[in-house]
Amino acid sequence: MRIANQEYKKRCDDLQEKIEANQLSGVVLFDSYYILYYIGFAFIPTERPIAFLLNSGGEKALLIPRLELEHARSNALVDKIEYYVEYPYESSPMRALLTLMADLDIKPPFGADHNGYPWILGYRGPSFSDLLGYSPLSTCAWIEDQMMIKSQAEIMLIRESVKWANLAHMLLQRYTKVGLTETEVSLRASMEATLAMLDAIGPIYRAQSPFSSGASAGYRGQIGRNASIPHALASNIVFQQNDVLVSGANAPVWGYNSELERTMVLGKANDKQREMFEHMYALQEIAIQAIKSGRACADVDREVRSYYEKNNLMEYWKHHSGHAIGLRYHEAPFLDIGDLTEIRPGMVFTVEPGLYIPGLGGFRHSDTILVTEGGNERLTYYPRDLPSLTI
Amino acid sequence: MRIANQEYKKRCDDLQEKIEANQLSGVVLFDSYYILYYIGFAFIPTERPIAFLLNSGGEKALLIPRLELEHARSNALVDKIEYYVEYPYESSPMRALLTLMADLDIKPPFGADHNGYPWILGYRGPSFSDLLGYSPLSTCAWIEDQMMIKSQAEIMLIRESVKWANLAHMLLQRYTKVGLTETEVSLRASMEATLAMLDAIGPIYRAQSPFSSGASAGYRGQIGRNASIPHALASNIVFQQNDVLVSGANAPVWGYNSELERTMVLGKANDKQREMFEHMYALQEIAIQAIKSGRACADVDREVRSYYEKNNLMEYWKHHSGHAIGLRYHEAPFLDIGDLTEIRPGMVFTVEPGLYIPGLGGFRHSDTILVTEGGNERLTYYPRDLPSLTI
Repeated sequence: MRIANQEYKKRCDDLQEKIEANQLSGVVLFDSYYILYYIGFAFIPTERPIAFLLNSGGEKALLIPRLELEHARSNALVDKIEYYVEYPYESSPMRALLTLMADLDIKPPFGADHNGYPWILGYRGPSFSDLLGYSPLSTCAWIEDQMMIKSQAEIMLIRESVKWANLAHMLLQRYTKVGLTETEVSLRASMEATLAMLDAIGPIYRAQSPFSSGASAGYRGQIGRNASIPHALASNIVFQQNDVLVSGANAPVWGYNSELERTMVLGKANDKQREMFEHMYALQEIAIQAIKSGRACADVDREVRSYYEKNNLMEYWKHHSGHAIGLRYHEAPFLDIGDLTEIRPGMVFTVEPGLYIPGLGGFRHSDTILVTEGGNERLTYYPRDLPSLTI
Repeated sequence: MRIANQEYKKRCDDLQEKIEANQLSGVVLFDSYYILYYIGFAFIPTERPIAFLLNSGGEKALLIPRLELEHARSNALVDKIEYYVEYPYESSPMRALLTLMADLDIKPPFGADHNGYPWILGYRGPSFSDLLGYSPLSTCAWIEDQMMIKSQAEIMLIRESVKWANLAHMLLQRYTKVGLTETEVSLRASMEATLAMLDAIGPIYRAQSPFSSGASAGYRGQIGRNASIPHALASNIVFQQNDVLVSGANAPVWGYNSELERTMVLGKANDKQREMFEHMYALQEIAIQAIKSGRACADVDREVRSYYEKNNLMEYWKHHSGHAIGLRYHEAPFLDIGDLTEIRPGMVFTVEPGLYIPGLGGFRHSDTILVTEGGNERLTYYPRDLPSLTI
C-alpha cells in the first residue's frame, strides 16, 4: 500500500518529456507536494529551503539542509543529495542551489514552480531573477495537469482514505449528543478511529500530511446557526436539540486525501430543515449525474446553478460545486462555471454544493467521486439520506 | 484575553508610517499571518484569494470570496469589505482586486508581500507584473521586523500558550510507558489537555491556527534510534525500555504559539545517554545565558557552537540554536551565526541546540524565552533536569 518506485520514475519521465518539448535545461521545484509527488520525499516546509532538480537528461538531485540529510537519504528517490549547513548561516542556500544546478547543467532557459524559494516561516533570500537576471518559466501548470489524472495506485490510496474517514465519521455521529461539546466528540471520534486504523494498517501506513497523522472527524464550528458560515473556525459549541450540523472527515494515507462531509440534524428535522436538506440532496445528485468524461468542469457547475436559480435558492448559494482532491485537499480543476478543463477518467473530485440559510444553518454533503470511462464512481459510501443522518 | 482593537489599529498605523516614509500609495497583503496580525481576521488560506489593503491615507479594505463574507463581517477590523463571487468563476479575483485598489487609490508605486496571489491549492492567476507591468516593492521585511517585537498583550497570550502546552506535556510524560505506542499516548494527552483547557478558558479562547484547535503533545517519531532524525514524521513507534525520547508540545492561543520540547529517557539513563544529556543541557544553558538585549543573534549561536567544537560534538550537530516564535511557530530572526539582527526586549525565541547520535538517539530541549531589558525570562517552566525527565 504505497506508490511504487516505478511509478515515481514514470512521473519524472513525463516531466522530463515536458522539459525536452519546451527546450529547457531542467526544472527546479520547491513545493512540498510536488516534491512528494515526484520523488516520494515527505517533509514539512519551513524557512530552510528544499529543492528538487531534474535536468533534461533525466538526472535527479535534491538540495536539503543538513538537518534533513538522514531523512532524505532513506526516502528520496534521487540520484544525488546535496546539503547546505543551515539557514540563514553565513552563505545563502540559494548559492548551494546554484552550484547544484551547475552540476546538473541546469541554466537559462529552465523552469521552476517559483522564482526562488518562497518567503515562508521567516525565510528571506534572493530570487532567481535577483541572482541570474532570469525569471524561470513557470512549470506549475504542467505539473498540476499531470497530477490531475490519478493512477490505479493513487486511487487505491484514496479508497483507503475514504474507509478510515468513514470510520471516524461513524464514531462522530454515534458520539454526538445534545449537551456535549463539538471538541470532546470530535477528539474522541478522531482518537478512536486513528487507533483502530493504526492497529489495522499501522505497519504499512504513513500519513505524509502536514495537517494530520491519522483519521479525524469534526464540525469546525459548523453547528446550528453557526453552520451558515462555511469555513467557520471551530470554537467548541455545545450541541442543542434541533441543531443542523455540517461535519467533515478525512484520513491522509501516504499523503492522499478524501473528503466526507454530511449534514446531520439533532432530533427530528422541522419542515424548513427537511426542505433545505432535500434541495441540498437534489443539488448534489445533479452534480454527480453531470460528472462525465468529455464534458467540461464548468458544465457540471452550470447544471447545479440552474437548479439553484429555478428554485429561488441563489440567496443561499456561497460556492461552486467542488474541486479535485489528491495529495492536496484542494486541487485544480474546479467544478466551477469558470473552469473549462475537460473531465477525464482518473480525475477525483469532491462534490459539495451547499445551502447556507441565516438563522437556520448550513446544508452540505461532500462525497469523493472518481471519474471512470463510462461515468463516475462514488468512492464515499457513507449514507446520504436524512433518516440515516438524524441523530 | 485577546489583542485589543486599539492594538490592531496601532499595528496598521505603524505600517502606514512605512508606506508614507517610502512614498508608496499603499500595500496589498495576501499572507494569512500578516492579515491576522493587522486586522484580526483568521482564516485558512485556500485557492480563493484574500487580500488586505491599506493605503497611505490609512484606509483599510479586505477582499474576500463570497464564501467568507459573514465571517469577515463579524471579525475583520477594516473600513470596507468587498467580495468576488467565486474562484475560478468567469472573471479573475485579481480583477476585483484591481478595482478595490483603484477605490483606495493604490497604484504604482505600491508595496505587497507577493507579486500577486501565490500559487496555492490549485490557484492559478496573473501576477501584478502580468497585469500592470509593475512589480510591487516587497514589504515582507518591514512587516517581519514589526512582528519581531512582541507587545505586552502578545506576551500574555504566549504565556497562556506555555501553560496549556505544559499541561499537555505533563500528561504525555505521565502516560508514556514501555509497550504503548506514541500515537495512543499522544492522542490521549492531547485530548485531555484540550478538554481541560476548554473547560478552563473555552468561552474566551480561540485557537486561530491552521494546525491545531487545542493543546497537543507528541513525539513525531523522535523515539529511540529514530530520534536522531530531527523532523522525522510520526509513524506510531512502540516505546521500548531505554529509549531516548524527544517530545514537543504547543497550544495556539488566539494564534500565538510557544514551544516546549524535552529529552526524556525510558528507564535509568546509561552512561552515554547521561553524558549526551548533560552536554545538551550545557548547550542550552549557554544559549540562554547569551541571550541579551543589544547583542546580535549570531553571537548566541557562536557561543553555542564553540561548546560543540571544544567538546568534539560537531559530528552530532544538525541545526542552529533557535528561532523567534509568535503567530508563526518559526519566525525570523534566527539564533544562527548568519543572522546579525540585534536582540531587543520583546523578542521571543525558542532555545533548542540539539545533539543527534546515530544508534543512540536525539537530545534536544526547547524552551520559550522572552528578551527583557536586563536579560531574559524563561517563559517555559517545565522541568529540564534528567531525574525529572526519567520515566
